Amino acid sequence: MPQPITDTERRDRLRLSRTENVGPVAAAALMARFGSATRTLEHLPGMALRGGRTAPLKVCTIAEADRELAAGAKLGARLITCGEPDFPPQLAALDPPPPLIWTLGHPSLLTKPAVAIVGARIASAGGQRFARQLAMELGQAGYVVVSGLARGIDGAAHESALPTGTVAVLGGGVDDIYPPEHRNLYERVAASGCLVSENAVGRKAKAQDFPRRNRIISGLSLGVVVVEAEMRSGSLITARLAGEQGREVFAVPGSPLDPRAKGTNDLIRQGAILCESAEDVIEALRRQPTLREPQRDLFSPPRDEAALEREAERLRERAYALVSPTATPVDEIVRALSEPAPAVFAALVELAVAGRVELLSGGLVARA
Amino acid sequence: MPQPITDTERRDRLRLSRTENVGPVAAAALMARFGSATRTLEHLPGMALRGGRTAPLKVCTIAEADRELAAGAKLGARLITCGEPDFPPQLAALDPPPPLIWTLGHPSLLTKPAVAIVGARIASAGGQRFARQLAMELGQAGYVVVSGLARGIDGAAHESALPTGTVAVLGGGVDDIYPPEHRNLYERVAASGCLVSENAVGRKAKAQDFPRRNRIISGLSLGVVVVEAEMRSGSLITARLAGEQGREVFAVPGSPLDPRAKGTNDLIRQGAILCESAEDVIEALRRQPTLREPQRDLFSPPRDEAALEREAERLRERAYALVSPTATPVDEIVRALSEPAPAVFAALVELAVAGRVELLSGGLVARA
Repeated sequence: MPQPITDTERRDRLRLSRTENVGPVAAAALMARFGSATRTLEHLPGMALRGGRTAPLKVCTIAEADRELAAGAKLGARLITCGEPDFPPQLAALDPPPPLIWTLGHPSLLTKPAVAIVGARIASAGGQRFARQLAMELGQAGYVVVSGLARGIDGAAHESALPTGTVAVLGGGVDDIYPPEHRNLYERVAASGCLVSENAVGRKAKAQDFPRRNRIISGLSLGVVVVEAEMRSGSLITARLAGEQGREVFAVPGSPLDPRAKGTNDLIRQGAILCESAEDVIEALRRQPTLREPQRDLFSPPRDEAALEREAERLRERAYALVSPTATPVDEIVRALSEPAPAVFAALVELAVAGRVELLSGGLVARA
Repeated sequence: MPQPITDTERRDRLRLSRTENVGPVAAAALMARFGSATRTLEHLPGMALRGGRTAPLKVCTIAEADRELAAGAKLGARLITCGEPDFPPQLAALDPPPPLIWTLGHPSLLTKPAVAIVGARIASAGGQRFARQLAMELGQAGYVVVSGLARGIDGAAHESALPTGTVAVLGGGVDDIYPPEHRNLYERVAASGCLVSENAVGRKAKAQDFPRRNRIISGLSLGVVVVEAEMRSGSLITARLAGEQGREVFAVPGSPLDPRAKGTNDLIRQGAILCESAEDVIEALRRQPTLREPQRDLFSPPRDEAALEREAERLRERAYALVSPTATPVDEIVRALSEPAPAVFAALVELAVAGRVELLSGGLVARA
């Protein structure tokens, strides 16, 4: 159950998620194991050593976390961590959930039913017109419109949904205005909508930040509509993530003669719902109005730690031997070891914290 | 098994299918019952009387049939009846099959693997370009391209497939050039492709002829590609018929802003295969290369006629009482009567020949 937390625990959750080798999978596993970020941070250096790390783990310091918190406060931004009452339930339902988000503007929008509209940055005039119309109609139907503040389809969708409510998820920090020509749009979203970022305040977006940003876009939404997309574009990644998250995927068809329809037509071929109007989205969401239940309770009481650690110690090197540079399902490792799954998973988390393996979403693991 | 027939039997098949109240369902049933058109014609007037008709049935006369045969011969056209070795097997597989077709040009094309390309008469330049490219590539891949000689998509598809093989199915007689501006195309199809019509030589196409024409277009083809189509257009009827005939249905997507994409997008929503290129068609047909087996052998030996007629006599009025102006499944009549299905069907055929009921495809029957 979500519950209020102390400022110390909130700061420690920030520290945990800014610590090297701690991705969302490891963070969720560690929180489940130790019950709080404060306790996790106590155990983390020891776990890394046991996992096989020789140099000490660089844990985010209190001073570093306080600097980020102060920078956020100065902006008027708010940090919400997973498990707090205000944390968007549709993000908490992700596996793994993002450990925290920064918000600027009106975070109350994040708990309302939302639909993402994404698409090509270099969009056609028709595509932008369609996105505007769609965003307006979804807004009027009571849906918050989520997008990524990018050029083209994203910008058109935000603009049109400003009067009814729009959320922009950023790749960089919540203060990183990208692209620069969207400064005015950014400010209007901050004023009447909500800006969201998983990243550190002050961080400039880099290419590798966008897949994680895309996961939040789809994660905040009941469904994702892709308006125009060439093959191998970022919008298709968002669509794939939405599918994996159990969200509806919609795609707007287009002529085979238009390269910007290649990606959306391919999505339809793969089973996305064909979207010609807001009605298609509203109708599909009416039939499937709820999300999956959150798959793990992050605040279960701590388990028998000593027993788990003894098991993990035994299992760790056997597990490591089975992990290869190619991503392997954790289930497969469990089967190969013939040991209880929670124990194997704990061993893999230690290896991850030590930087020896990487826990990937979708239940996969690979050598780091 | 298909087998060669005499000129008299061919002429009598023509007479049978030009006789009032004898549609394809009744023709197939009568041929199955009596084994030949010549014997059917002997029994037909008596059946109509028994079925409850007061005025004598207007059977197509020998003179009338000879006139149509002479007109066809003068054109250089060829009559092929269902059951003859040259009758296209994919048409024979229909339920009911068309009793006969007139062909002009190269009927050998009708037994090669074929794909239909149909679409809007008032097509966009892009749609016509797509149809040309598709027809060319399907032709190069060895498929005969079938269409309806109409303006727009049909014409573009025929034009582009002339070098590799194209078949035009006409609504009127095989000599009815419609639309008139396609005279030149008609002549080139006759020279290097094949014209096909189920209708009488000399007949001008009327609106009611086109659904039957569309059934032949899809019936000749392994699959039907709809390129552009507004809602409620003839191309969608062809697509529906293709689906009912067990043929693949392909649709080319388009922007929701284009009304000519409404019909094709809707087909995709209903399960048509999304087609962006010839490769999509070729790939799908590679996975599903054969047709259903023909569902009835038109040349089974005659059954015990006397027994059937006694049953039919008893059943006829009971059956008629159960048929209403709304189309009813024949199966339902059979169940209500608790009598053997062939006997009930024979009674319904007599009622049909008498003009009291109408046998519809899809196993339905209605009061005439």
